[in-house]
Amino acid sequence: MTVTIGLLGAGRIGLTHARTLANLPAARLAAIAEPSDAAAEAVTDLTEARRAEVGEIMADRAIDAVIIATPTDLHAAQVEQAARAGKVIFCEKPIDLDAARVRACLEVVGDTDTRLMIGFNRRFDSEFQALKQRIAAGAIGDIETIHLISRDHAPPPIAFVERSGGIFRDMMIHDLDMARFLMGEEFVEVFATGSVLIDPKIGAAGDLDTAAATLKTASGRIAVITANRRATYGHDQRAEVHGSKGMIAIANQRATSVTVADAGGYHRDPLLPTFTDRYAEAYRSEMTAFVDAVASGSPLSPDGEDGLRALELADAALRSSETGMTVRL
Amino acid sequence: MTVTIGLLGAGRIGLTHARTLANLPAARLAAIAEPSDAAAEAVTDLTEARRAEVGEIMADRAIDAVIIATPTDLHAAQVEQAARAGKVIFCEKPIDLDAARVRACLEVVGDTDTRLMIGFNRRFDSEFQALKQRIAAGAIGDIETIHLISRDHAPPPIAFVERSGGIFRDMMIHDLDMARFLMGEEFVEVFATGSVLIDPKIGAAGDLDTAAATLKTASGRIAVITANRRATYGHDQRAEVHGSKGMIAIANQRATSVTVADAGGYHRDPLLPTFTDRYAEAYRSEMTAFVDAVASGSPLSPDGEDGLRALELADAALRSSETGMTVRL
Amino acid sequence: MTVTIGLLGAGRIGLTHARTLANLPAARLAAIAEPSDAAAEAVTDLTEARRAEVGEIMADRAIDAVIIATPTDLHAAQVEQAARAGKVIFCEKPIDLDAARVRACLEVVGDTDTRLMIGFNRRFDSEFQALKQRIAAGAIGDIETIHLISRDHAPPPIAFVERSGGIFRDMMIHDLDMARFLMGEEFVEVFATGSVLIDPKIGAAGDLDTAAATLKTASGRIAVITANRRATYGHDQRAEVHGSKGMIAIANQRATSVTVADAGGYHRDPLLPTFTDRYAEAYRSEMTAFVDAVASGSPLSPDGEDGLRALELADAALRSSETGMTVRL
Amino acid sequence: MTVTIGLLGAGRIGLTHARTLANLPAARLAAIAEPSDAAAEAVTDLTEARRAEVGEIMADRAIDAVIIATPTDLHAAQVEQAARAGKVIFCEKPIDLDAARVRACLEVVGDTDTRLMIGFNRRFDSEFQALKQRIAAGAIGDIETIHLISRDHAPPPIAFVERSGGIFRDMMIHDLDMARFLMGEEFVEVFATGSVLIDPKIGAAGDLDTAAATLKTASGRIAVITANRRATYGHDQRAEVHGSKGMIAIANQRATSVTVADAGGYHRDPLLPTFTDRYAEAYRSEMTAFVDAVASGSPLSPDGEDGLRALELADAALRSSETGMTVRL
Repeated sequence: MTVTIGLLGAGRIGLTHARTLANLPAARLAAIAEPSDAAAEAVTDLTEARRAEVGEIMADRAIDAVIIATPTDLHAAQVEQAARAGKVIFCEKPIDLDAARVRACLEVVGDTDTRLMIGFNRRFDSEFQALKQRIAAGAIGDIETIHLISRDHAPPPIAFVERSGGIFRDMMIHDLDMARFLMGEEFVEVFATGSVLIDPKIGAAGDLDTAAATLKTASGRIAVITANRRATYGHDQRAEVHGSKGMIAIANQRATSVTVADAGGYHRDPLLPTFTDRYAEAYRSEMTAFVDAVASGSPLSPDGEDGLRALELADAALRSSETGMTVRL
Repeated sequence: MTVTIGLLGAGRIGLTHARTLANLPAARLAAIAEPSDAAAEAVTDLTEARRAEVGEIMADRAIDAVIIATPTDLHAAQVEQAARAGKVIFCEKPIDLDAARVRACLEVVGDTDTRLMIGFNRRFDSEFQALKQRIAAGAIGDIETIHLISRDHAPPPIAFVERSGGIFRDMMIHDLDMARFLMGEEFVEVFATGSVLIDPKIGAAGDLDTAAATLKTASGRIAVITANRRATYGHDQRAEVHGSKGMIAIANQRATSVTVADAGGYHRDPLLPTFTDRYAEAYRSEMTAFVDAVASGSPLSPDGEDGLRALELADAALRSSETGMTVRL
Repeated sequence: MTVTIGLLGAGRIGLTHARTLANLPAARLAAIAEPSDAAAEAVTDLTEARRAEVGEIMADRAIDAVIIATPTDLHAAQVEQAARAGKVIFCEKPIDLDAARVRACLEVVGDTDTRLMIGFNRRFDSEFQALKQRIAAGAIGDIETIHLISRDHAPPPIAFVERSGGIFRDMMIHDLDMARFLMGEEFVEVFATGSVLIDPKIGAAGDLDTAAATLKTASGRIAVITANRRATYGHDQRAEVHGSKGMIAIANQRATSVTVADAGGYHRDPLLPTFTDRYAEAYRSEMTAFVDAVASGSPLSPDGEDGLRALELADAALRSSETGMTVRL
Repeated sequence: MTVTIGLLGAGRIGLTHARTLANLPAARLAAIAEPSDAAAEAVTDLTEARRAEVGEIMADRAIDAVIIATPTDLHAAQVEQAARAGKVIFCEKPIDLDAARVRACLEVVGDTDTRLMIGFNRRFDSEFQALKQRIAAGAIGDIETIHLISRDHAPPPIAFVERSGGIFRDMMIHDLDMARFLMGEEFVEVFATGSVLIDPKIGAAGDLDTAAATLKTASGRIAVITANRRATYGHDQRAEVHGSKGMIAIANQRATSVTVADAGGYHRDPLLPTFTDRYAEAYRSEMTAFVDAVASGSPLSPDGEDGLRALELADAALRSSETGMTVRL
């Protein structure tokens, strides 16, 4: 079965998905809804998609699924519209920055027969997948502590920071989802703190640029996450999980293994600069997983509930950082 | 410009190239010549190629280029046929196991206007490319010594060994070409030796399974190559180049960076098992480079001369291993 | 000048110091006070030390300095006694498990002319020293976050746990001191949490076996520490410091660099099993630094204030773990 | 039993041995024979050794063993003198640069009851020892190929080169001995080649500065050695052994594990600069092994035969490099 798809939004991530779909024999990108002519054309040049209004896409019975890659403030309404139209839905994270709005949206989805997948791309990265599989296979026994280190190469523009929802909801939410994904048990306590150490403009915009969070499950397992909005040496994302039988870790992926030794010592290149470089393959795997699941009718994962949980953890982290107290969920 | 291509041979490597071409917008695989119905269908299922005889492909004026991926003993005649038919040619290595036959073939090619590229895929691997570029950029000054370690995961079937031309012409030829590629100066002396340590059947077939070669250029630069037909831990290929300013090395590519520590110590996975796993991306880059060069009319590299030189080094290595003497070229 | 020394206590750590002193030309171990005959003899066999009572040592005018390696509950009184006797003092950490008692003891020391050094051996480890020096030399700019991972190979006996003061005062105190040492700015906020995941007997003894702490300085710099009382693969201690210009990290020291690759993959040995193996050289450097400073009259470091501050951080971590609230210092 | 020792020669290596002996309870350095007052005093300051003539040391019945650390051209005669005097002998390598002279010397030793150990210090390095032990324990099955890479940080002074015996007898001899030590089977074929790439003065002195050797045993096992007289990044010595069950490798020892990442990438320090830094611990282990074996009467290893065999391999390598032919032993 070929899955016929409508794409909402042709920004950086929408275009990335279009490119993947163009190379997936099981998928046909039939339509793109995008206000910018240039952005829309980038997609129509690449695929056989026609340009269309969002409403047309929703009404088109030939379209099985929609991919929502529009600005965040449009997500919730478009998810609801798509759910009512009976489409299978892929929505970039987050559904909304407001957890109550997300809950309302998920109720609408729940009242329909449809399925919803949230774009936590990092779950589809081969490194994190291998990590999860080894843990599931018992390589380290029972998990005791998880360490996640997340550093962006450069902070986003202040204009983005201002409407991003802040470091916990925008950046650390990926790590919060990853901590849930790896731990396999819900967190019931969240502590977080943060600082403005990189750029005072980030502070002036009401956000933090350096943050740390500690989460605990009901059985006492602990996850520790740190996030920095700038690392001079590239996009740095590492994970380590310690358990009753041992430890498992993944390192950063690198463009090459080249090592140069000279009078100054041994040198390796900086890391890949951005998450789009780092997770290029993960985006493809994610979209492939979505198309395959739509075609086969199998459950979608991560789903709306996963999106909500991660957002609730981010909200709890923000509250904790404001009060200095552990937030219990 | 779209390059229209005819493929000769749909074995493992032919199919690999067909798959790459199916995803290259600049290429159109128009025809496949292959005696086996099943093998041919694997290609026609994947592409819009029609099945044809070799002669038809050569005669088809719409076909710009041919890819020769047939058994080795057909290569030279097909290269000549294609050259006379005015096709741009990609030929898997070697053109022939007999250097004299290769020279004759290259003369035929030289008498036409056409261009010929030889399938030394390793030159297109991102690790080896980075190595070459850094050396060219002066990272280690002037090259003094090159070390290449090459180990296959498992020896080939004895039936293959028997008609392979032997470890120097079949296996080490890739390293001999790589040594030339990295050194950038021709070798004028070759010493080699070898043993049968892995499987006496390989010896009974007249071949070696373990070999070492030392090559020297006119200016005294040295390359040392070792080849083993079996390494329990996977397909192992490493390079290190030492120069007046320092050293540069590349390590094996690995499926993941996962490290597990337990009571027995620290563990990483074995290497990728085969050269097709290891060089999957290199095969794509190679075919892309071929199609781009055909389209743009730019020179092809590595060319027939490169194929001949690598074979001459392999022949010299074989002779040296039989006589215990350095062979001067 | 030769420094004449009296040693109080010939347990594991006392004996370690005696062994170092026996090889230090600038030091003469003159006397050992130790109730156990066997333990005392281990020292007198190794050195020219005579056996003596604590009081004799204090009264002996020929003795310049004392090393206090007795059980923790004797430390404070012996430090006071030695201070009043005018000895230069080396005291194993902690002076006392009760911060008020430590403060009282430091007042007594302060009222004399003498000097006091505290046995935070890890500060003398070549890895941590190099880390500190590179940071001081500006390798990573201004510190933003510090990560310390501390894992013991095996939990101590329950009898030890019961009177140890708990995971924060006994084990993590080394990391709290190291965080202060590396940060170079005092911490003003402490959050900590912990669990019993390894052995319920540790919980029954009122302690935790898994803990995490987050500390912040007045300027917002953050340190994150995790401690586990058991790691199957050895004694694991790593540090990573991230700053405005980059990141610096130290790995575990290993007995050898041996890597074995076989059909199961690549393997390295487990880590050294205990802190006495890991820090053997650091203990020697520490004692050498003490003897040198006594001889030259230069200031001792870490001093009593450092001991007190680390204990206060441990107390704060314990309180935070009990209340779920950040403790402000 | 305390072993009473006489030391001949107080140059760099003699002083190193004196320092070790000063810290060995089982040894007493009783006398030093050394023409230079300053050099002799460095030893007498460090130990209770008296200054003496070589003849006095040989005649002193209280002296059990002698350590010969004089210039190479004195070794053979002093070994013979010591053997006749009934001393146990430790002689720095080589006994002589002329194999015939070594054979004659070993005959003299063989005619006495005494024992002789040769200073191949690298055999006592913990890395190479671990390598040997793992191979013996079966970690990689039967050895097939050995790779040794040996690079000095800087070439020796030309005056030293002129009387050194050349790169094979002076520098690569350590690797030739190591190849024998690891292989556990004698080599019967030697091929070598070399060049002058670093400094034409080395060539003018009749030597090479870059060399490669390939050795083979009767059963076909192969060792490949490369030697460079200059590596900008430090003293580089690595070994890799490949066998029927896998591969084992040792890396260079480093002063610290510090890694710095900044905008230019990841950086580690250069290697230790000299063999005396790199093998400081090995020299101590070597001397300890000698003293222990003298005390216990157990066999000494490596012995004179080992010294002779390594020299014969070096001679064969030199001859091969001059003729371009494999030398059969």
